[in-house]
Amino acid sequence: MTATVPPQAVMKAALQAYVDRTNAGDAAGLVALFAPDAVIEDPVGSPIKTFAEFPAWFGDSVAFGARITPVAPIRGSHGPAAALVFDVEFTPPGGQRLRIRSLDVCTFDAEGRITALRAYWGPEDVEAAG
Amino acid sequence: MTATVPPQAVMKAALQAYVDRTNAGDAAGLVALFAPDAVIEDPVGSPIKTFAEFPAWFGDSVAFGARITPVAPIRGSHGPAAALVFDVEFTPPGGQRLRIRSLDVCTFDAEGRITALRAYWGPEDVEAAG
Repeated sequence: MTATVPPQAVMKAALQAYVDRTNAGDAAGLVALFAPDAVIEDPVGSPIKTFAEFPAWFGDSVAFGARITPVAPIRGSHGPAAALVFDVEFTPPGGQRLRIRSLDVCTFDAEGRITALRAYWGPEDVEAAG
Repeated sequence: MTATVPPQAVMKAALQAYVDRTNAGDAAGLVALFAPDAVIEDPVGSPIKTFAEFPAWFGDSVAFGARITPVAPIRGSHGPAAALVFDVEFTPPGGQRLRIRSLDVCTFDAEGRITALRAYWGPEDVEAAG
């Protein structure tokens, strides 16, 4: 990779902010973590979302009461990328509360903004929240 | 993604085999988990290794006494991809035993062979093994 690599601490702080702002219900704060040309693929294998779709995406996250519990320390890399491992609970409209075992791999620009977020969770990684 | 997606269980079994064969010191068995056109980027941001380099790569892993401890359930996806979260301990030549907090994101072909492995760990994710 030739892209400028932000310090490890900058990338990890952005992912910790992703956790904290999700749990605080701060949709605007979540959108602010991303670069204007960023994309989200959540889950991997689903249609890509672009920046204009992020306010509605994170608005739903907040409306569904999403709460993230990290389950391992955030991983960095030797490039402009880092990864967050977590469980997330939320309540979809009209449904019961669910828990997804997930994992977000993110790339970053030189300013530490997220340029791509790809979430790894499959149909068998979803269960009723206990 | 338009690629054929192997069953979640097939991808997860391949990643569990990656753990088991590492811990058994089975370098040939590790190579056999990959497609002939596969690539390894470990860590992300380092030079890509191609299949011809895998026997030496995994031979070193075995020689260094690599032992993997998964730290979260394997994640699938809605595409031909899955992720393994782990700590790995190993002893580099002439050095002390180390532990790396790592995470492998893998893509798969229709037969469930790994086509790409990208490992997320940064310089600050390495520590002396306790």
